[in-house]
Amino acid sequence: MEIKLKPIGLIHSPYKTKQEMPIQAYASKEVAEIEVFKEYVDGLKDIEGFSHIILLYWFHKSKGYSLHVKPFLDKNFRGIFACRHPNRPNPIGVSTVKLLERRGNILRVEGIDALDGTPLIDIKPYVPKFDERKGAKAGWLEGKL
Amino acid sequence: MEIKLKPIGLIHSPYKTKQEMPIQAYASKEVAEIEVFKEYVDGLKDIEGFSHIILLYWFHKSKGYSLHVKPFLDKNFRGIFACRHPNRPNPIGVSTVKLLERRGNILRVEGIDALDGTPLIDIKPYVPKFDERKGAKAGWLEGKL
Repeated sequence: MEIKLKPIGLIHSPYKTKQEMPIQAYASKEVAEIEVFKEYVDGLKDIEGFSHIILLYWFHKSKGYSLHVKPFLDKNFRGIFACRHPNRPNPIGVSTVKLLERRGNILRVEGIDALDGTPLIDIKPYVPKFDERKGAKAGWLEGKL
Repeated sequence: MEIKLKPIGLIHSPYKTKQEMPIQAYASKEVAEIEVFKEYVDGLKDIEGFSHIILLYWFHKSKGYSLHVKPFLDKNFRGIFACRHPNRPNPIGVSTVKLLERRGNILRVEGIDALDGTPLIDIKPYVPKFDERKGAKAGWLEGKL
């Protein structure tokens, strides 16, 4: 079984290389522009009501994967499904970002951790009841962020 | 540009049809079993430390999409990117679930809203600093859940 996806847009971020990206990009005030291709722009109706959105994107610089990886924040090898590392069996990234403004087919967002030129796969509204888990335990990442 | 994905597992849930699924499945105590295919099982190392995980899956029953949809919880048509509806340009679902237990290649989880037999695409650890946004506004969904 093979699943085929098509980009619906592009992420224009301040980060041209992996090295430029802060480890805590999620907490950064840097602004990125999400370009939604014209054929999908009608799907953005009502998005302005949400303070945060979830972006799904393709880790287009990812080359293959290992099931065990040594994350930047750790000295030990960890299972890839216990990491957010881009080199995954299916290299799809998920980031929750703050929606600052919509201008036509452009969404200005804060707190992104994707490289400039990353293909966008989907946008979903962030809904606290669905997406917020208070008191969640962060395993090996606990205390490292 | 075309992006190709391969299922890494299968979701075995109590919901055989869309009609059987509660609207608030995220709040349900129903238990589902996530089967990770043997070739990927080593990637589950360290997952037990996380209380919650994010599942990415393919809405395999989705047939095409409209950019405006009328969600079950609403009387108005909404933009598809302001909804979590399965009929999307790229029909990928994202759910945060509670990890109850791991038994080899099986993860027992609570609070899933995917149909039985749904192909699994990825598992990511839920990390509060990345994924929790306190006080987020839920747009047209505010007060409906």
